[in-house]
Amino acid sequence: MRVLIIGGAGMVGGKLARRLAGERVLGGREIESISLVDVVEPAVPPGAANVDTVVCDIADPVAMGELLAARPEVIFDLAAVVSGEAELEFDTGYRVNLDGTRQLLEAVRLAPGEYRPRVVFSSSIAVFGPPFPDVIADDQATTPATSYGTQKAIVELLIADYSRRGFIDGIGVRLPTICVRPGAPNRAASGFFSGIIREPLNGQEAILPVARDVRHWFASPRAAVQFLVHAATIDTEALGPRRSLTMPGVSATVEDEIEALRRVAGDAAVALIHEEPDPMIARLVGGWPRAFDARRATALGFVAETDFDEIVRIYVEDELGGLVPPLAERRT
Amino acid sequence: MRVLIIGGAGMVGGKLARRLAGERVLGGREIESISLVDVVEPAVPPGAANVDTVVCDIADPVAMGELLAARPEVIFDLAAVVSGEAELEFDTGYRVNLDGTRQLLEAVRLAPGEYRPRVVFSSSIAVFGPPFPDVIADDQATTPATSYGTQKAIVELLIADYSRRGFIDGIGVRLPTICVRPGAPNRAASGFFSGIIREPLNGQEAILPVARDVRHWFASPRAAVQFLVHAATIDTEALGPRRSLTMPGVSATVEDEIEALRRVAGDAAVALIHEEPDPMIARLVGGWPRAFDARRATALGFVAETDFDEIVRIYVEDELGGLVPPLAERRT
Repeated sequence: MRVLIIGGAGMVGGKLARRLAGERVLGGREIESISLVDVVEPAVPPGAANVDTVVCDIADPVAMGELLAARPEVIFDLAAVVSGEAELEFDTGYRVNLDGTRQLLEAVRLAPGEYRPRVVFSSSIAVFGPPFPDVIADDQATTPATSYGTQKAIVELLIADYSRRGFIDGIGVRLPTICVRPGAPNRAASGFFSGIIREPLNGQEAILPVARDVRHWFASPRAAVQFLVHAATIDTEALGPRRSLTMPGVSATVEDEIEALRRVAGDAAVALIHEEPDPMIARLVGGWPRAFDARRATALGFVAETDFDEIVRIYVEDELGGLVPPLAERRT
Repeated sequence: MRVLIIGGAGMVGGKLARRLAGERVLGGREIESISLVDVVEPAVPPGAANVDTVVCDIADPVAMGELLAARPEVIFDLAAVVSGEAELEFDTGYRVNLDGTRQLLEAVRLAPGEYRPRVVFSSSIAVFGPPFPDVIADDQATTPATSYGTQKAIVELLIADYSRRGFIDGIGVRLPTICVRPGAPNRAASGFFSGIIREPLNGQEAILPVARDVRHWFASPRAAVQFLVHAATIDTEALGPRRSLTMPGVSATVEDEIEALRRVAGDAAVALIHEEPDPMIARLVGGWPRAFDARRATALGFVAETDFDEIVRIYVEDELGGLVPPLAERRT
């Protein structure tokens, strides 16, 4: 089996590549090769054989045709301009997030011979916009509040139509907000959800810009990778015509996050969080979903964490080698 | 005020043009000019001044830019490849129904100077697909079962995003199945809904290919034109972020249709309907919506017929000069 990961330089794409390169099987079939594609050079997992990398623009139809020359049986479509950039750069957002994926779908459709790969598309809960109910069900209308969410919702429609017509065997997974994101703080409005866990666990101060009763929908990077792997291997007949699924997750408040941090790393870690209300961030986050009833995905075997403690522990295991640093000493 | 009707050669577009050319005002403002655009030459309403016609391909960006040179304040976007053709001709459907409207939206966005026209988009209840509830609410997910419905749902998302960004002042109206369509029978799977009324009223035999308990959602051509005119003139602030609305209509069974025909035109008309079950049409129609709770549109002042008798009477008034032909004599 050949696997293509478009967006292989991203955080989730990189973790997916490491898992697949390590396990060397997907859905019980041996993986012959993994191609990582991105606009910047993707990292090859250490010690991985049969992993190659391609740097190209996915909105380029010629490049896309070449990527499919090896007829990958599974294509992970993870490439995206993120929400903030798609909002600032209207053309870039549509070109990459809509036209890029459409090029992929068209290249598959127009490929000579019999070719109907599994296409796993990373969608987002950003396809939903206010006003929405406290708990969002699987048949809620997609009414995005951003250009990014609009582009994701449009691709979901394309994935369903191309699958119905038999051109691809597609599935869209609507990822929760991924938490705890590893790496340096970024300026995304959602960044603090990870920052108030990650920075204290690394002995650094963190800013909390919203009230502690703000509630949102989370899954770990490890769960996100598992969603994608599961989506690549399930029987899509069970999806019926609705090819995109809201993934399960943990509905947690900022207070829940803080208390989970306290249980894992103690009061000294929590003391590193400083409340600095930011009305603009509070207003943005106020328009985000708080909880989902993801019963379709759960029935199909998708599994997330059950509480925020587990999300914190996964960060410690996967990013800190399983060790909570001795915070009181590091502050001195 | 300048008005542009894209799809001006179609049935609804032609009726809209005749109404606007006759009234010469829209939303209390005088209409200076009406441009009718289509891939075939649109008919100029008899006696209309200030109506011009343009034959062009709306998917051509150059042509679209020229259409906007006069800066029409209201643009009706009614052009579409119909459902059956979009299903048979995949490329044509996407090129006209998706790329054509996207060219329009892009041409508006990129037009120099301040320009933010009202764009009224004719969407369709085909954005909904099974499984759905007996009565479909305004927040039901759009999960189309056809490429046509997919293209309409995608354009709804674009209309919302371009409006949110301030590039257009857009509104999408999801038209019910238009009944009674005037003119010759066509081969659309939905054609019999009109045919079993129209043909008997014209003294001709009609085929009924489905069971009498089949239920569907209807509005007259006159109501469709009124929806578009109302959409062109309402305060879109009241829409909030959800720019597309399911239009009100009449939920009626085939039996309701037949009994309405009997009340308007008598037993002789009904006797012209012949039941010839067609399993393929029955299967298609079985996947279509039966009724909607269109409370958002109703609250915003959109009004449809209240029963099927009214729909039949409107056909008689608008297409037969108000006279029900003496059917018994015409059959001899």
